[in-house]
Amino acid sequence: MEQAKQDFFVSAELLERMNAYWRAANYLSVGQIYLLDNPLLKEPLKLEHIKPRLLGHWGTTPGLNFIHVHLNRLINAHNLNMIFICGPGHGGPAMLANCWLEGTYSEYYPHISLNKEGMKALFRQFSFPGGVPSHVAPETPGSINEGGELGYALSHAYGAAFDNPYLIACCVIGDGEAETGPMAAAWHSNKFLNPARDGAVLPILHLNGYKIANPTILARMEEDELLQLFEGYGYRPYLVEGNEPEIVHPRMASILEQCLDEIKAIQHKARSGEALIRPHWPMIIMRTPKGWTGPKSVDGKKTEGFWRSHQVPLEKLAENPDHINLLEQWLKSYRPEELFDAQGAPLPELLELAPKGHLRMSDNPHANGGLLLRDLRLPDFRNYAVEVPAPGAVEAEATRVMGNFLRDVMKNNLDQQNFRIFGPDETASNRWSDIFEVTSRVWMEKILPEDTNLAQDGRVMEILSEHTCQGWIEGYLLTGRHGFFSCYEAFIHIVDSMFNQHAKWLKTCNRIPWRRPVASLNYLLTSHVWRQDHNGFSHQDPGFIDHVVNKKAEVIRVFLPPDANTLLAVTDHVLRSRNYVNVIVAGKQPEHQWLNMDAAMKHCEAGIGVWEWASNDRGEEPDVVMACAGDVPTLETLAAVDFLRRQLPDLKIRVLNVVNLMKLQPNSEHPNGLKDRDFDELFTTDKPIVFAYHGYPTLIHRLTYRRANHANLHVRGYKEEGTTSTPFDMVVMNDIDRYHLAADVIDRVPRLKNNAAYLKQMIRDKLIDHKHYIASHGEDMPEIQNWHWPYEAAEEVKKAQAIDISEAMEFGE
Amino acid sequence: MEQAKQDFFVSAELLERMNAYWRAANYLSVGQIYLLDNPLLKEPLKLEHIKPRLLGHWGTTPGLNFIHVHLNRLINAHNLNMIFICGPGHGGPAMLANCWLEGTYSEYYPHISLNKEGMKALFRQFSFPGGVPSHVAPETPGSINEGGELGYALSHAYGAAFDNPYLIACCVIGDGEAETGPMAAAWHSNKFLNPARDGAVLPILHLNGYKIANPTILARMEEDELLQLFEGYGYRPYLVEGNEPEIVHPRMASILEQCLDEIKAIQHKARSGEALIRPHWPMIIMRTPKGWTGPKSVDGKKTEGFWRSHQVPLEKLAENPDHINLLEQWLKSYRPEELFDAQGAPLPELLELAPKGHLRMSDNPHANGGLLLRDLRLPDFRNYAVEVPAPGAVEAEATRVMGNFLRDVMKNNLDQQNFRIFGPDETASNRWSDIFEVTSRVWMEKILPEDTNLAQDGRVMEILSEHTCQGWIEGYLLTGRHGFFSCYEAFIHIVDSMFNQHAKWLKTCNRIPWRRPVASLNYLLTSHVWRQDHNGFSHQDPGFIDHVVNKKAEVIRVFLPPDANTLLAVTDHVLRSRNYVNVIVAGKQPEHQWLNMDAAMKHCEAGIGVWEWASNDRGEEPDVVMACAGDVPTLETLAAVDFLRRQLPDLKIRVLNVVNLMKLQPNSEHPNGLKDRDFDELFTTDKPIVFAYHGYPTLIHRLTYRRANHANLHVRGYKEEGTTSTPFDMVVMNDIDRYHLAADVIDRVPRLKNNAAYLKQMIRDKLIDHKHYIASHGEDMPEIQNWHWPYEAAEEVKKAQAIDISEAMEFGE
Repeated sequence: MEQAKQDFFVSAELLERMNAYWRAANYLSVGQIYLLDNPLLKEPLKLEHIKPRLLGHWGTTPGLNFIHVHLNRLINAHNLNMIFICGPGHGGPAMLANCWLEGTYSEYYPHISLNKEGMKALFRQFSFPGGVPSHVAPETPGSINEGGELGYALSHAYGAAFDNPYLIACCVIGDGEAETGPMAAAWHSNKFLNPARDGAVLPILHLNGYKIANPTILARMEEDELLQLFEGYGYRPYLVEGNEPEIVHPRMASILEQCLDEIKAIQHKARSGEALIRPHWPMIIMRTPKGWTGPKSVDGKKTEGFWRSHQVPLEKLAENPDHINLLEQWLKSYRPEELFDAQGAPLPELLELAPKGHLRMSDNPHANGGLLLRDLRLPDFRNYAVEVPAPGAVEAEATRVMGNFLRDVMKNNLDQQNFRIFGPDETASNRWSDIFEVTSRVWMEKILPEDTNLAQDGRVMEILSEHTCQGWIEGYLLTGRHGFFSCYEAFIHIVDSMFNQHAKWLKTCNRIPWRRPVASLNYLLTSHVWRQDHNGFSHQDPGFIDHVVNKKAEVIRVFLPPDANTLLAVTDHVLRSRNYVNVIVAGKQPEHQWLNMDAAMKHCEAGIGVWEWASNDRGEEPDVVMACAGDVPTLETLAAVDFLRRQLPDLKIRVLNVVNLMKLQPNSEHPNGLKDRDFDELFTTDKPIVFAYHGYPTLIHRLTYRRANHANLHVRGYKEEGTTSTPFDMVVMNDIDRYHLAADVIDRVPRLKNNAAYLKQMIRDKLIDHKHYIASHGEDMPEIQNWHWPYEAAEEVKKAQAIDISEAMEFGE
Repeated sequence: MEQAKQDFFVSAELLERMNAYWRAANYLSVGQIYLLDNPLLKEPLKLEHIKPRLLGHWGTTPGLNFIHVHLNRLINAHNLNMIFICGPGHGGPAMLANCWLEGTYSEYYPHISLNKEGMKALFRQFSFPGGVPSHVAPETPGSINEGGELGYALSHAYGAAFDNPYLIACCVIGDGEAETGPMAAAWHSNKFLNPARDGAVLPILHLNGYKIANPTILARMEEDELLQLFEGYGYRPYLVEGNEPEIVHPRMASILEQCLDEIKAIQHKARSGEALIRPHWPMIIMRTPKGWTGPKSVDGKKTEGFWRSHQVPLEKLAENPDHINLLEQWLKSYRPEELFDAQGAPLPELLELAPKGHLRMSDNPHANGGLLLRDLRLPDFRNYAVEVPAPGAVEAEATRVMGNFLRDVMKNNLDQQNFRIFGPDETASNRWSDIFEVTSRVWMEKILPEDTNLAQDGRVMEILSEHTCQGWIEGYLLTGRHGFFSCYEAFIHIVDSMFNQHAKWLKTCNRIPWRRPVASLNYLLTSHVWRQDHNGFSHQDPGFIDHVVNKKAEVIRVFLPPDANTLLAVTDHVLRSRNYVNVIVAGKQPEHQWLNMDAAMKHCEAGIGVWEWASNDRGEEPDVVMACAGDVPTLETLAAVDFLRRQLPDLKIRVLNVVNLMKLQPNSEHPNGLKDRDFDELFTTDKPIVFAYHGYPTLIHRLTYRRANHANLHVRGYKEEGTTSTPFDMVVMNDIDRYHLAADVIDRVPRLKNNAAYLKQMIRDKLIDHKHYIASHGEDMPEIQNWHWPYEAAEEVKKAQAIDISEAMEFGE
């Protein structure tokens, strides 16, 4: 631990006023938790002034208020551009109190004015039906981190600081939150922050000692271990501790000056062109009592400085009139008459302490990132198209083609500094390596001569922590920039709960007029279930889509482009979209290409369509609809069509491909959903449908159970069978291979009854041959590996690649 | 960093033999990755001896082999009971090689004998169709951690060590895995391990420097920071580093002796009754090259000691005949002729180095925990029943009643030391506080006088890290003990991916005869979506059930007991079950109680049933079926029935309650599923069904879309609407309240057409009254708060509480 600079001095007068400001914020916080009326305590406090249901979290609140007033002083003294990331989301009362004191709240919500009526409304609305949540929610100006689910504050703060060289993201981390895995990993984000280019993060670890009902680990560790831990994480920790405000105030002020000095020194050095080594950024460990300034004890039980302060220290006021007196004493201990004038406005000498305009942390535009968002300069994605003279005529690695496009997205926006790529050590594995032609992975530790694609100014963010990647990209997007997250499909479940919280945040923002739209959170999920035959069962899980579609339809989109050109069109689309979570699932292995760019664009615009060139029902009712979604299911469907057409030339097959999964839902459920009329036209109302789907088959039923022809829908997909095997064996184990699909058709088309036995035997034989072959050769049969789509000459296909969907439908709005 | 004890000496002869053993393991590892035939290289290596598809991860393997031979020496020298948790799961070849060398593999899999034929079979099966996975999978004897998804090795190791005082769980952690959040949090597990009662965990952090394509953070940090980090975590780290085996061997041997000495000293002190303070357990940081002993460079590119060694260093052997020569040289560099006899068996002087019998890490029974599993001594759960003289006559907090039962489960098994409770700081919040009458939270840090329910020998495991809780309980169960994990419903998504991996593990174990069944992983999800009105939107998410049902039906069970007595019956059941993941969702707030214990038992046995006492269709066809699953949906359904019966006395309503959600699926899909005949009897084949479900409504459609009456099924549930509000407002926002349910019935029963307009207006008025009331009072209307079930006198109900399900069905086998 270092000593703070000794020469720093804040006048006693200023500290006194800051303490008054803190008292005001604490008063306003307690008021929010308890009071319906009598906000200034002008009359004796009675039960009817008190909320019937007491909700809120007092414990963390006074500490947050304390930090806030000190940051305000720092901002004023140095004209700082700072945001406040509030890890203890339960500290909503503190953030609301400060927002009100700074005048911001009344600007955003004029009915909560800066006077007695406004104060009463501020109190009443808190955790009250029709009011505001108890957390630092989207409704709270100045916030980008809700904090309801703990662990993400610090990665959000780093995400905000990247590419914002003049921003300081001050991040308060509760000692409860500090026990979570995502937080424990996020401390290492300092290895990825470049002081020449990025802003600063100032972590304040708030040790108030207790969780809901337990001490915290970090607060009980020996101090030397605590300091070693954070020095080991690469920080320079400063302790600020005490129970007595008159001691803690000057200490906090001088330590904050010290931290700012160090931040400026680091940045100055880095920006003056000196060779960089990763600096030891300062951080603060603030140890103050839980529920500081609240009741020392209640009913004889220790309360201040203990976990009993966590939520509402005084409860059941109707049954305990004595508690009403205690509450009144508690509120009066802040001496509101010295803080607010007769009209209830904070006194001018307090208001003076708040920064002005956008310097207020509650009104910093970085916390409403849509205000700062600039469109990406996107090259024309059509220029990256794979030449597809005929369906199946060439092979390509879809995500490599996408990476080629993203390279130029990156290049075009290098000067805007507003685009980054995120992923857990998988950018190259996922075939985006072309991006390394224009930028590198960011890396602030030592770089060795043999290292490749590592640089201090890289824009590819790789850490083997999906949590940290997710937190970074969320922070980056919410502060008005763009990004893409690529991940192995199975392991994106690691951030299921973070996705939940982000989707909830976006849904809520859609209902808040002053929240400007931000860039969508874009996922590429690759190394997917069907091509993890080499990595085995633990790497095979396509369930993230199921998880995603539980969230509000208005914020989620799911795309399953079947080849490279459709992937390009979808990529361009998602980079232009706002306020969504876009999930794209696409393979990285060399696969057959089906659509030229024109056809791909039309197909993606429609989101779903008949592939005329693969169908032979032209102008007639088909015997069967073969639908597919996902690259491997598309391949197997087409191979099944080939098999069936050879064996049963008269069979009329309609081939349908789905890119935008949400098209399957009724349009009453999802804005992208097809109208019943359009759905029925595609799927018929009475013909059997054999649907090969990328993920768990029940999802297709879930999306389509209201459709007319649902009773005839038969879905194949992943049924949780897998191990280390071959690609084709993976589909066979799950009955979604060409032969099983063909058998499904044979079973379902009544007029094939006569051929059934013969064909089914042929299929069984083929599957047995497959088993024998791979068991002896360890790879798939040549007839599988070398299968290609044999129909149509190049000329006629050019026309036939067009999509048959009578009315142009919107591309995933 | 401490110095190793100076006086320890391993003879040069022994070190030489250990090095030979290591060479043998490395040879066998390379052989598995590459060879189909010619296992002993008796003839020149040719392309046809080599697998056509090269799969596997060489990079981490030699390090694992190195550690293994050293642990074997330690086990032999001190007769240790040790298991090996292999974090780098990709190091499968190493674990398989050692298992074969120890003879275990041939005992479990006789066709993989300890000779040339066996060696060939060992090589061939690796990552080969019909063979074994490339990871340390359930198929691998000695394993309890697959390692395919990274981050869980250390919490598994601690889980294994709890209550196993004579076990040492040696845990190798890769430096990639060390970047993950779950791992970063798990280091703090040392604050919960009691050396007097528990075994030891010896972490070996293996810094091989690189991930797939990147350096690792921990390997590139300055050494002083690295050591500070782990000292800060509370360990005593010892460095073992080098490239040259002749230097690293003696260092590793002496450091291991040092660590064992320290472990023994800690345990001796703790067990001789000295007052405990949390000790600084030793750990090893081993820094050796990635792909150690492999090709130094390939095609002019650095390979050994670099990320290019991660998977298969020499690739495309068909195209590069030169690589075949390199491979042969590499294999021969281990001098196989000095390691194996002419028949291919390892030489006796090598075999001597392996421990014998259960001392072999590959055959330690703790890694096949079912062998050690003893049943819990369960008290009769009926003794904890809530007295329910009539449905709705009393209120109770269901999870508190459960906690009362669990207290005695804990008490009855204190001497067996095989039951623990896990959860993130929520045991008291979730109303299990009765457990604290017989045990405390375990806590090895300082305990202050004001602390409550903290003790060094506590059996309640609380850390604010769902990941660590999940890892601990998995490790505890897989080594043959019992546990229960309680969690806020919304935040259990944090461990979605860990659940996935555990469910996959269990499914695979079901197919391995020698894997003995282990106790089920039991979740209580409470503080659920409908009673998080006070904590707001971020705390409202019932989607874990959807996630769970994607996994194999044979390993997952979901229960939604509607009251305390049904919760007791379900709790007893899950504690007796084996090899499942049981998810129980139940509320903790005071709620109406419906069933006395007899009725509850019958209801839970059936899993689903008509509630005769709430229905008025006796003996007749109903007009409508009102189904419900979950405590709050049950309450709202019964209140809707009350409303409808008052307004429409002639309406015939059948009330159906679902406890075991899997009953809804066809029995072809889930072993608990109802036969169609039984389903149709309950739900009718043609009457409208209004189903109030706890979670996202689509799940009910997904489970029932094949049922005859599915077209008439209308489901209400959570539709992702919520904020901080009142309990009743939560159900209103999601249209699952009594009034919406009543309106749904009115809309669907044709003969109510005449009453519809009048009743719908009454319902609208009631909902408007509700809105107004809560907006002014901040709590629910008295008519909502005080509603109770008004029908039937106590006498006749006693009979009517019986469940009408003609044939007794199995209780969730």
